[in-house]
Amino acid sequence: MSQPRVGFIGLGIMGRPMCKNLIQAGFPLTVWNRSRPGIDTVTGYGAAAAAAPREVAERSDIIITMVTDSPDVRQVILGEQGVIHGVKRDAAVIDMSTISPAVTREIAAALKMKGVHMLDAPVSGGEKGAIDGTLSIMVGGEEPIFQRCLPAFQAMGKTIVYVGPTGSGQIVKLCNQVAGAVHLQAMCETLALAVRAGVDPHRMLEAVSAGAAGSWMLSNLAPRILKGDLNPGFMVKLQQKDLRLIMETADELHLPLPATALVSQLFRSVEADGGGDLGTQALITVMEKLANIRVAG
Amino acid sequence: MSQPRVGFIGLGIMGRPMCKNLIQAGFPLTVWNRSRPGIDTVTGYGAAAAAAPREVAERSDIIITMVTDSPDVRQVILGEQGVIHGVKRDAAVIDMSTISPAVTREIAAALKMKGVHMLDAPVSGGEKGAIDGTLSIMVGGEEPIFQRCLPAFQAMGKTIVYVGPTGSGQIVKLCNQVAGAVHLQAMCETLALAVRAGVDPHRMLEAVSAGAAGSWMLSNLAPRILKGDLNPGFMVKLQQKDLRLIMETADELHLPLPATALVSQLFRSVEADGGGDLGTQALITVMEKLANIRVAG
Repeated sequence: MSQPRVGFIGLGIMGRPMCKNLIQAGFPLTVWNRSRPGIDTVTGYGAAAAAAPREVAERSDIIITMVTDSPDVRQVILGEQGVIHGVKRDAAVIDMSTISPAVTREIAAALKMKGVHMLDAPVSGGEKGAIDGTLSIMVGGEEPIFQRCLPAFQAMGKTIVYVGPTGSGQIVKLCNQVAGAVHLQAMCETLALAVRAGVDPHRMLEAVSAGAAGSWMLSNLAPRILKGDLNPGFMVKLQQKDLRLIMETADELHLPLPATALVSQLFRSVEADGGGDLGTQALITVMEKLANIRVAG
Repeated sequence: MSQPRVGFIGLGIMGRPMCKNLIQAGFPLTVWNRSRPGIDTVTGYGAAAAAAPREVAERSDIIITMVTDSPDVRQVILGEQGVIHGVKRDAAVIDMSTISPAVTREIAAALKMKGVHMLDAPVSGGEKGAIDGTLSIMVGGEEPIFQRCLPAFQAMGKTIVYVGPTGSGQIVKLCNQVAGAVHLQAMCETLALAVRAGVDPHRMLEAVSAGAAGSWMLSNLAPRILKGDLNPGFMVKLQQKDLRLIMETADELHLPLPATALVSQLFRSVEADGGGDLGTQALITVMEKLANIRVAG
């Protein structure tokens, strides 16, 4: 049986290596991007270029979108030259962007009117996970469609979890971002206490990281802070985009999230200093300012 | 060379198994406790009982205290029948309780006037760690004294880290509690978002726990919450005691800890419901009340 033909829309820092992995796994690939450099890179891997999202859809059994935010997904799927105008009945559209669960359900409903399936399948693991093919992928939608698309997911990720009906993937990604954001602040307050009290933060991390107070952030980002490395990783401005999605969704759900709300406010201070392109560990600079201490580097 | 004689004061839920492990490692042990049952248990393991902390000190080269809070440590070491009145020159006093770093330095100074060394060596790992001899021990004081006492630490713990001068052990323990407390709230908000949005929290945890948003709390306490198990573990009232120490210390240091402060306020709601003896995962009940949802069980 031949591989399904895959279309890929959105050839940024994540999309490019994901395309490379799909091609290496043997999927025939047609791609589109808003700007030229992404297209040149991915056609260099062996993909064919299309003139518009609509044309990607005409040539594909599975169409993947990997763009920045809800309006971008709406545009490439439902817009004038969007996927919906070229997609074949019974095809699957997989949105791997992190966007609003409500917008996800709206787009899925529009596609369903045309007999087209949609999965929401946001990822975590960042550029490194995309390059290594080790992304975590949290998938919402109809389970048989998930099964049908699983080989494509396996080309791009490692932990691939079906989490429930349409929108569930986005909700789980937002849960992931809630935990991650609050863990970042936990890490920053922990480091600040050690430094302010005159204790070697390296020894503190050695004692704390392995036990019940441990987290991925403490083990992985705290040492980078102590080296003075605030490079992304995951950019502050994208973290803030996700925190906005979280707070909008929580608003719709009448769900108070007090610690998440606090952390999103503290991240604003990083942005106020022009730190939007730094890695999320730059949250430490807020504690540095608040406590008049130096932690990073 | 014969083992140093060890004294142990404070035979509660932690002290008893720690004594058992010291005896099994071959240390001759003299003990005292405020109440009888602890003494009966530990003399049953082979320890000798003394009539007062002073008498424990007279018979020991290393005197360990494991009691609840700063005033208890001050009482058993500096009080009328305290260790300081019986302790020999060049002996080592090890306080393994979690108490104020400032009180620790005050007691260490009083002992130093008598030519006695003090280590502050609080632990994490709870009753299970004490029983299994796998406690994490974070030790402050003079490094040669730490080296002298290391065999006794090794009888009780696994991760044993020398973290700096007197008081540093307590600071690192407070860092541990900062991270742990904020991670608990991260876990609770993550679970609340999944449940409020109608997503299976088990699948959410499966997708989130392994990645960059992972923590010990998410991996270990969240599944207990979903089973409806709010038993301690680590009791809310002891977490609050530690959070009070953290906020007092942060006050002395002029250190703002916004997320830690928030979590300590939210724990008050668990106490308001009479939940002080529950495990710290009972913090979920606050999110349940705030969001009108049911997560536990």
